[in-house]
Amino acid sequence: MTEQETESDDDFEEEYADLGATTQEAMDIAETSMDIVRQFVPDETLADRFRQKSVHSMGDIEFQHLLRFTGTDEAGEPDDEAPIRAGANAVLRESTIVTDITMSKAGVTGRGHNCEKRKAIGNGAELAKKTGMTRTAASVLELDKQSVYDDAIAVIGNAPTAAFALADCIENGTRPAVIVATPVGFVKAVESRERIREVAEEYDVPAITNVGRRGGSGLAAALTNELIHVAKDVRTGELDLDLGVDIEVDQ
Amino acid sequence: MTEQETESDDDFEEEYADLGATTQEAMDIAETSMDIVRQFVPDETLADRFRQKSVHSMGDIEFQHLLRFTGTDEAGEPDDEAPIRAGANAVLRESTIVTDITMSKAGVTGRGHNCEKRKAIGNGAELAKKTGMTRTAASVLELDKQSVYDDAIAVIGNAPTAAFALADCIENGTRPAVIVATPVGFVKAVESRERIREVAEEYDVPAITNVGRRGGSGLAAALTNELIHVAKDVRTGELDLDLGVDIEVDQ
Repeated sequence: MTEQETESDDDFEEEYADLGATTQEAMDIAETSMDIVRQFVPDETLADRFRQKSVHSMGDIEFQHLLRFTGTDEAGEPDDEAPIRAGANAVLRESTIVTDITMSKAGVTGRGHNCEKRKAIGNGAELAKKTGMTRTAASVLELDKQSVYDDAIAVIGNAPTAAFALADCIENGTRPAVIVATPVGFVKAVESRERIREVAEEYDVPAITNVGRRGGSGLAAALTNELIHVAKDVRTGELDLDLGVDIEVDQ
Repeated sequence: MTEQETESDDDFEEEYADLGATTQEAMDIAETSMDIVRQFVPDETLADRFRQKSVHSMGDIEFQHLLRFTGTDEAGEPDDEAPIRAGANAVLRESTIVTDITMSKAGVTGRGHNCEKRKAIGNGAELAKKTGMTRTAASVLELDKQSVYDDAIAVIGNAPTAAFALADCIENGTRPAVIVATPVGFVKAVESRERIREVAEEYDVPAITNVGRRGGSGLAAALTNELIHVAKDVRTGELDLDLGVDIEVDQ
């Protein structure tokens, strides 16, 4: 199983299940699957966990080379772990997870965190109608007006125009806790992720993105789920990250 | 925009919008996008339309070579268009579209058809708990007990074990109108699609699948949406398919 399933809010209090696996067969498959992935992807850094998840989600070993991590350490030097720390921190602070479309939202697990999950699409219909802009771009601008993106985990799995809209919002002062942006396709997808990386650097908003035309909601959900996974490992004491916040470690 | 969005059942009566594009900017992007795709993928047969959509959905020109069409013409000869005719026919007959997981369901458009959209996951929880099989496999078996898969458009975008379960159901007499199966991953995904093609051939159930490890819910939704697109073209008289049923052509 690659994409995860959330069935109801009842799951919110349940523990994170890697790759959404909760039955014996599913856990065996998930374990075998990640064992195979780790034969081909390094397993040394936190960023490697995201490279592994991207490979698993895309069913393609080569995808490990296509992820990009934007962010800096305390000395202001580029640091692959910066968006991971920021994302895990945001999960532990129960920031809102805002996706662009329904598919991305459906792929983000409800287990192992208490973040609210929202989608942008469905908002801003009037703006889209009036301006002719895409529904997803209008929905991002509309939610931004309501300050939804400030301190949020902003996930853009599908729509390049939503990514461009989010970049504009950041230029105008909005500060998501972290961005996961992986729009797919032949028109503006590549450019939309370049634009996200530019504003991410300029305004110090950590981001996980990819290069190339590929991507999609499944990938965005997988990367977001790995942020939740890292947060769970911090919460349970399996992982010690200097997140700069007090984490009450489960015993 | 690659994956399509369905916001509410209110959309069910609305006309099909290619690539989910309903605003001017979105329609421009969709058109430019498919123009680019058609520079690299043939545009001669009905099957080519599905190859184009797969390329668009995956953001990868090479994906055109990875689709497989299983089915036969009236003389019993292999025919790439067989699953397309069967799928379009099923859409026009308002068959139920049953997906494996929420992500696949979210990607199937609600526009331009009156088919009910259902997902399997969420059913069969007791069976999964009792046997340890995956939740998606159990959900397929549970819905099959309720005869949901007979004459349905069966969509498996994610879970190999759901594809295996569906294949077992077909061996036991279930007859979907058409199957779209594109599970992704490193464990059993390739084999699950091989198994679907085997039972599809043996029991004459038309199927659209892919080869290789890649795939996923976005691809499954894109292919299903193209079945809806073809059905719309038949309904509006833009396309003349010998579907063996009376179609009332819109004027």
